[in-house]
Amino acid sequence: MSPLDEPARVARLATLLDSDRDEWSTTLDNGALARLVAGVSARDDCAVISLPGVDLVVGSDYVRGAGFSMYEQGQMSFYDIGYYLVVANLSDVAAMGSRPTGVLVVIRYPQDLPDDAFDDVMRGADEAARRYGTRIIGGDSGTADQLYVSGTALGLSEPGTALMRSGARPGDHLFVSGETGIAEAARRYFEHVAAGGARLTADVEHTLGESWRRPRAEVDLGLQLAGSGVVTSCQDTSDGLKATVEQIAEASGVGFDVDAGNVRVSPLVDQVARVTGRSAEDLVFGGSVDFRLLFTVDGSTTTVADVQARFTDVMHLGSATVGGETRLVRHDGSTSPIPGVAWRHV
Amino acid sequence: MSPLDEPARVARLATLLDSDRDEWSTTLDNGALARLVAGVSARDDCAVISLPGVDLVVGSDYVRGAGFSMYEQGQMSFYDIGYYLVVANLSDVAAMGSRPTGVLVVIRYPQDLPDDAFDDVMRGADEAARRYGTRIIGGDSGTADQLYVSGTALGLSEPGTALMRSGARPGDHLFVSGETGIAEAARRYFEHVAAGGARLTADVEHTLGESWRRPRAEVDLGLQLAGSGVVTSCQDTSDGLKATVEQIAEASGVGFDVDAGNVRVSPLVDQVARVTGRSAEDLVFGGSVDFRLLFTVDGSTTTVADVQARFTDVMHLGSATVGGETRLVRHDGSTSPIPGVAWRHV
Repeated sequence: MSPLDEPARVARLATLLDSDRDEWSTTLDNGALARLVAGVSARDDCAVISLPGVDLVVGSDYVRGAGFSMYEQGQMSFYDIGYYLVVANLSDVAAMGSRPTGVLVVIRYPQDLPDDAFDDVMRGADEAARRYGTRIIGGDSGTADQLYVSGTALGLSEPGTALMRSGARPGDHLFVSGETGIAEAARRYFEHVAAGGARLTADVEHTLGESWRRPRAEVDLGLQLAGSGVVTSCQDTSDGLKATVEQIAEASGVGFDVDAGNVRVSPLVDQVARVTGRSAEDLVFGGSVDFRLLFTVDGSTTTVADVQARFTDVMHLGSATVGGETRLVRHDGSTSPIPGVAWRHV
Repeated sequence: MSPLDEPARVARLATLLDSDRDEWSTTLDNGALARLVAGVSARDDCAVISLPGVDLVVGSDYVRGAGFSMYEQGQMSFYDIGYYLVVANLSDVAAMGSRPTGVLVVIRYPQDLPDDAFDDVMRGADEAARRYGTRIIGGDSGTADQLYVSGTALGLSEPGTALMRSGARPGDHLFVSGETGIAEAARRYFEHVAAGGARLTADVEHTLGESWRRPRAEVDLGLQLAGSGVVTSCQDTSDGLKATVEQIAEASGVGFDVDAGNVRVSPLVDQVARVTGRSAEDLVFGGSVDFRLLFTVDGSTTTVADVQARFTDVMHLGSATVGGETRLVRHDGSTSPIPGVAWRHV
């Protein structure tokens, strides 16, 4: 049997660690109770542990992967890798609607990595943590056969307010916090240039590169969503838009109709699609690591206009349906599966 | 300039991330305050964050290293690697005297890793977490160029009771929770056998192998130490006994006189030293990853006999002195630096 691909393996994990055995709590001598609210079987962006007066969220992300293709193309420095590592981890906290409360970074490096390079990774990580109002609080460093960077981010929520993937109900409105596809467009563009392809302007190249050098975690929006009381599910788009829609659908037991006419395509994505001969739609929906928030809003109490008035710049994508099907609905009423690859294979 | 070795790089980290800027806190809308008590500059086994009614400790450990030499010698399975990963991470929680409250595991694997091998790593991790009364609550998995395993462990302490490295005072008694050197003896022994060296009995081989397959985190002892009110510092010996003594000395601003006559040498270590032509002392003090707890007890209120009555099987090593020197004091009164390498270079 060939090894399972990534989503299948993650699904398997939940079975292996047996969701029915997932209930767990412990009490300290002073009576403080810790209770696991969402563990592996929840398959959410972060685990959630209920503590006295607060919920702790915690997630780990390894980032060596597509990002490093940008490093190989000369588009990211060691500093940028450190920055990216922390944003990738904080994005999971943002997706829970939690307040960042510390980041741990694991940096293992080949023995010949210059001190400056190591320092740069750490400085970039430090800047990103501070940018989001938190700190690098620990981790692990040491040698390894290759550069390996991984992290863990902590966040705090008021009890019961952490945003899960599983709360969407039929009739809920589906939103994404901004345009997607830019990170993947950047990666494809610089590979195209490295292969001798035609170039776009220096301004466009700079903006594409910045999507990896200075990605953004939607921490403020996440906090607003959690505080709004009307958001029923949320997840970041670090696996790409298609995968994220499908994962919320699965976790919530709903389908989604995404209205193709609502999907705003960034001019950057359009230009890259044209010059590289790719489909803009594949970039927008595929495995682009844009760290946007995909979320649903209670359709029984809230209108699309309410949401757009309250959270500026969010993009209305469609709505949750009965059953598990996720579809792209085109202008003429025809439907298709959501385009793009469902997962980032790197 | 040649790259800094590991201890120098860790020291540099504390400077890079500037200890003076390390004060950090955040308040949720419901008034809950989170305050960083020990961050990177504390250079402790875990970071400590004060939360309402509890202190959260959290640390990350990457374990690909010496342990994998045991895998290559056929002494560890994938299951054992998962088990080891979790124990290594929980040992840091034990060293803080905290109650394990969840483990996250990052397992990145080459694309051709069989499903069974992946499952085995996870099952081993799961068993170890349950063995210590906690759960695998999350992490990250996916492909990479090689197998990388890393983890993060959480723990909870009653406020102000987490055991730090920095509290030892001159006159305090120095203890270690058991014999050291066994893990390193195991590694050296199986390398020696692989190179065609003479073998010990099957029973001895089994016990040596078990030190890697089923290592123990001293969680119960850590909780007892934290609850005793007389322990002034604590650290696990995952960097080896010499390094651990030196690190507590540095963090606390004291020296240590270790009485050579007090150091119990495991018969396993003796046998391996003999058959491999190594120094037993180097194995005992060097970079052996035994996950023991090294700790100091307030010498002004507590006698060595008190400690030995209270915590059975702990080994009295010596006492804290004024100034930063760490020495081995021999029977004839002569002194030397503590033998062994100060850090695990793998």
